[in-house]
Amino acid sequence: MNRNFIISNIKKKKSFLCVGLDTDIKKIPKFLLDYSDPIFEFNKRIIDSTKNYCISYKLNLAFYEYYGSKGYDSLVKTLNYIPKDIFKIADAKRGDIGNSSKMYAKSFFEYLNFDAITLSPYMGMDSIIPFLEYKNKWVILLSLTSNIGAKDFQLLKFDEYYLFEKIIEISSKWGNIDNLMYVIGANRSNYFNKIRKLIPNHFLLIPGLGFQGGKIEEIVKNNLNNDIGLIVNSSRKILYSSNDNFFQKIVAEKTLDIQKKMEKILLDNNII
Amino acid sequence: MNRNFIISNIKKKKSFLCVGLDTDIKKIPKFLLDYSDPIFEFNKRIIDSTKNYCISYKLNLAFYEYYGSKGYDSLVKTLNYIPKDIFKIADAKRGDIGNSSKMYAKSFFEYLNFDAITLSPYMGMDSIIPFLEYKNKWVILLSLTSNIGAKDFQLLKFDEYYLFEKIIEISSKWGNIDNLMYVIGANRSNYFNKIRKLIPNHFLLIPGLGFQGGKIEEIVKNNLNNDIGLIVNSSRKILYSSNDNFFQKIVAEKTLDIQKKMEKILLDNNII
Repeated sequence: MNRNFIISNIKKKKSFLCVGLDTDIKKIPKFLLDYSDPIFEFNKRIIDSTKNYCISYKLNLAFYEYYGSKGYDSLVKTLNYIPKDIFKIADAKRGDIGNSSKMYAKSFFEYLNFDAITLSPYMGMDSIIPFLEYKNKWVILLSLTSNIGAKDFQLLKFDEYYLFEKIIEISSKWGNIDNLMYVIGANRSNYFNKIRKLIPNHFLLIPGLGFQGGKIEEIVKNNLNNDIGLIVNSSRKILYSSNDNFFQKIVAEKTLDIQKKMEKILLDNNII
Repeated sequence: MNRNFIISNIKKKKSFLCVGLDTDIKKIPKFLLDYSDPIFEFNKRIIDSTKNYCISYKLNLAFYEYYGSKGYDSLVKTLNYIPKDIFKIADAKRGDIGNSSKMYAKSFFEYLNFDAITLSPYMGMDSIIPFLEYKNKWVILLSLTSNIGAKDFQLLKFDEYYLFEKIIEISSKWGNIDNLMYVIGANRSNYFNKIRKLIPNHFLLIPGLGFQGGKIEEIVKNNLNNDIGLIVNSSRKILYSSNDNFFQKIVAEKTLDIQKKMEKILLDNNII
């Protein structure tokens, strides 16, 4: 999926929301456990309830690998069920030497047909390049994450720069605004200015809306660009907003509510 | 598997060799393609030919995920075939927030029953702790890798320290010599002194013997400690040393040759 398509889809759907399908079998409505593949049955209903209000789904691989080859099947079925115009992110956080990265790239981009994958930058350029060689596919590089451990290394200071700034500065030369995005935690609004100085035009994937403490108004301030430049993810806040038999209605309302906030932001900023 | 067991097994087998099962279906002997699970059939034969000369197997997840749920089954069958006294490493290079790390830990340590997993440090402490909470299981943290991209970030300098030194210094407080090892590339002998100053007693996993340019004599210099402290990995050099119908004989000879070199090193250093 190319950049223009993503931007026009955001404008059309008046939403830059990504729904994170971090499906935990212990948290889904009980009646779904009677099906042979409860994970897929839940995802299917979440997709039905949210697909008009979001432009992306992010699948956290931890939640599928957990169930072994059965989890892999749920993943494949879910991917096939997602409408074609929606941007599919593998939240895999991989990062390995060239040899192994090539195999991961092939798995995620060719076999599973994801549009994008999250990667860890620690092993450097040759661990990322095999993914950037695919046309209309995206690398989303971890830079400043929302978790408390971000302070351990990402916020280490080199002279006047944080490590995550060095990572953005160096890695942004490996790709371009058409194949490279960055993960920035929703609760990192103090750093948005610094980040936008380095990469004014790149898309950022912002996880943590809701549960990890990020508010949509905070997230867009000093961060939105002329091409929007933001994909904001919410997982648990949407998925588990209700767990009775009528959960789909609540999930749809919750998602519509976020979409409406995003629509207002896009209007207020003369983007639509 | 605990530290004492690993050390006594090294002394008993006179080897600190790990064989990397990075099994690529395009490189295995052709006759194996007639079996329903060629990956497992190959691994089984490699294990038969090498198990007396090594103390560990490392399975690179990239090579199994590549084949989807079929690959997962090959992985499980291979793990079940590995003798109980051999240290099983998941070369997965994962690293995610606590929530997801818990699920990865459960997958790799409980369901798959690996003894150890390689992790990327970039997301900090809360991405590593869920793995360290398992008794007799190990985290092997990426620190200074053998690939060219290591220079991009791992060798960035903070005042007088490299990033990888900061990572070792900080992360070594999260665990101890009984549950934490580090990945150091075989071709990084220039840095062994610095590393051993920071972590004199930790085990290091050293990949890259053979193909990535590391020689065993170089690897042990300034690096071996009283409890050996090294697990040295070879993958391609062993696996693909021959690909005709008699490959097992060549593989066994190649592995025995490495074991003999290791035995001499252990003798010369009065460890056995």
